[in-house]
Amino acid sequence: MKIEHPTPINWQFAKRAEQLQSSVIREILKITMRPDIISFAGGLPSPETFPVEHMKAAFDNVLSRQGKIALQYGPSDGYAPLREWIADSLSIAGATITPDQVLMVSGSQQALDLLGKVLIEENSKVLVETPSYLGALQAFSVYQPQFVSVPTDDYGLLPEAVDGIADGARLLYALPNFHNPTGRTMSVERRIALVETCARRGLPLIEDDPYGALSYRGEPLPKMLTMNPSGVIYMGSFSKVLTPGIRLGYVVGPTPLIRKLEQAKQAADLHTSQLTQMVVYEAIKDGFLAEHIPSIRTLYANQCQVMLDALAEFAPEGVKWNKPEGGMFIWVTLPKHIDCMQLLEEAIAQKVAFVPGAPFYANEPEKNTLRLSFVTVPPEKIREGVSKLAKLIAAKI
Amino acid sequence: MKIEHPTPINWQFAKRAEQLQSSVIREILKITMRPDIISFAGGLPSPETFPVEHMKAAFDNVLSRQGKIALQYGPSDGYAPLREWIADSLSIAGATITPDQVLMVSGSQQALDLLGKVLIEENSKVLVETPSYLGALQAFSVYQPQFVSVPTDDYGLLPEAVDGIADGARLLYALPNFHNPTGRTMSVERRIALVETCARRGLPLIEDDPYGALSYRGEPLPKMLTMNPSGVIYMGSFSKVLTPGIRLGYVVGPTPLIRKLEQAKQAADLHTSQLTQMVVYEAIKDGFLAEHIPSIRTLYANQCQVMLDALAEFAPEGVKWNKPEGGMFIWVTLPKHIDCMQLLEEAIAQKVAFVPGAPFYANEPEKNTLRLSFVTVPPEKIREGVSKLAKLIAAKI
Repeated sequence: MKIEHPTPINWQFAKRAEQLQSSVIREILKITMRPDIISFAGGLPSPETFPVEHMKAAFDNVLSRQGKIALQYGPSDGYAPLREWIADSLSIAGATITPDQVLMVSGSQQALDLLGKVLIEENSKVLVETPSYLGALQAFSVYQPQFVSVPTDDYGLLPEAVDGIADGARLLYALPNFHNPTGRTMSVERRIALVETCARRGLPLIEDDPYGALSYRGEPLPKMLTMNPSGVIYMGSFSKVLTPGIRLGYVVGPTPLIRKLEQAKQAADLHTSQLTQMVVYEAIKDGFLAEHIPSIRTLYANQCQVMLDALAEFAPEGVKWNKPEGGMFIWVTLPKHIDCMQLLEEAIAQKVAFVPGAPFYANEPEKNTLRLSFVTVPPEKIREGVSKLAKLIAAKI
Repeated sequence: MKIEHPTPINWQFAKRAEQLQSSVIREILKITMRPDIISFAGGLPSPETFPVEHMKAAFDNVLSRQGKIALQYGPSDGYAPLREWIADSLSIAGATITPDQVLMVSGSQQALDLLGKVLIEENSKVLVETPSYLGALQAFSVYQPQFVSVPTDDYGLLPEAVDGIADGARLLYALPNFHNPTGRTMSVERRIALVETCARRGLPLIEDDPYGALSYRGEPLPKMLTMNPSGVIYMGSFSKVLTPGIRLGYVVGPTPLIRKLEQAKQAADLHTSQLTQMVVYEAIKDGFLAEHIPSIRTLYANQCQVMLDALAEFAPEGVKWNKPEGGMFIWVTLPKHIDCMQLLEEAIAQKVAFVPGAPFYANEPEKNTLRLSFVTVPPEKIREGVSKLAKLIAAKI
């Protein structure tokens, strides 16, 4: 019943889709999945940290006791007990978050898409850090904003730079804890100053916090959400503290925005897996994360130190890097004349990989930067990889 | 550290978001979740059909054998063995579907969002059936098309009407098997004519097929995809044949489109749960659906017959309805002067619920129509509910 000689379709994509590209990082990841490559390119958490048995028990428990509910369609805003748990975990004295301020999403990447869909008008200004998280730039770019890069230094975004560039902006997007890609942490003083500036301007401030719990020393710094619950939109995720493969995150904010995001969520995919939400609630409700997260912190802190030591030992003069206080990444700046895209080709030939920094810049890429992840590479391989990379860099200086 | 007296944000949503509303159906569902209400309003499959033990065993199996892979990030296009399984299941002699033509999504609602994002330009024409699936209208409307309603009759869409209204259209969206909301099935002759018309015009034809496997008698009619794999975009789902709460669907089409959709998927939520995909593959790879689906068909066919019998017994003169050959819905047309939105209020007061037909029309709603679902209501309650509803209608004639 196949028809004969159909006219081939001349695919005409919408303008918003024309600029979509596959993430440079995911393309690099495909190459560097080969087991013979020492890859610092990943943004993936270490599978060592996945609590497989605990998750298996939670699935078994939920399916045994509430199988037919877990396997049925669920509400668009998410599973109520989990939303309550999240609201409680974010509330502090003087700043209470309520469950109706929480929307469950399919990984926090989806929160970025929904926020872009609901807030970004074509050609409107969107303020992002220099550099910024690539996934956010990708998600927002579909809605065709004009990205404005907010200046940063080693301590993160410079709040005093915002007033001069924010007129007409629809939102400011920041990642204050153990930033991706730079590993930087924004100081408390700057957080207060940024929240005050955005609040004074009535500018929605997005606080993306996938790594906040992964502090190597002591508790994380205060969340900007708690400094102004009526103006900050907070994004959280279970990807880095539990497991990413289940795709579960959340967005928290003022209710008029959350209700609009809920409508967008409904149109986008009805709701996030009911089973996944019930299982995660089952897995964490009795305090599991408080036991589990310290083991992730210790693993990552140790591997970070191995990489810092290796950089100190092998990196040639002229190479700079930061010392992260948590998270998964070290940011390396090479002498200006070195193009890290080119360096990557040579590195892959030597069986080492990293992510060039350029794609993380919304405007004017600094091509002499690169991101290193230490979390999925065993210590001896970290030393070997950094040593190889250092030789390649030294040959260019 | 909370800041004092922040300026309240005057939320300014993007134009595309202004028109977003919560689905009328989901709002009705909230009311009709009360156990004392006989609800024909649901679009939910019967939880009786959920293979809880089988899914539990599959979760256990995957987490035991491949836990660390299942819980890690996965590829944006989906889990390869599942894509292969789907490609095989859709291939017929003379029309081979390859795995790279398959993109896994978080329920087929997400395919609608991604298709809208990639194909619909603001103010461009989008052709839909009269009436059409509400979730598709919602997903597409975010991208601000001009909907054009294609005329239909009791046997579905009229292919000969397409040429007169399709100039400049970006896509035609059809649901040929056991249509939502009408329960209608499009004949083979019309499928061929529609595929030929679209192929001649180079117009992308979307074939949404969530209910195709739920045929009460014999095998479903041939898929339009197999009539022109280079011009038809097919959407499938595990929601109605396995379980909806896990959110798993797929979209199949020509590779240039699928690669663009994959990029949009990556920006929207990176990928669909790796664990869910591996578990579904584990659950179905040895032929489970062929055993399981007949039991769903039998249950639904029986309850459909009970409702048809009750309608024949109780419905007053002037009420018309169709006899579905599969799926989950019966479409009822009342005398012109009856507004089903008003009827619904009276029905809820009598503890019966249904979905008014009006929201399913992209243009010019027929307010005297309504959709009845019989799948989640036990037979004796079906009779009771139809009898009550018939009395309310009779009082208006």
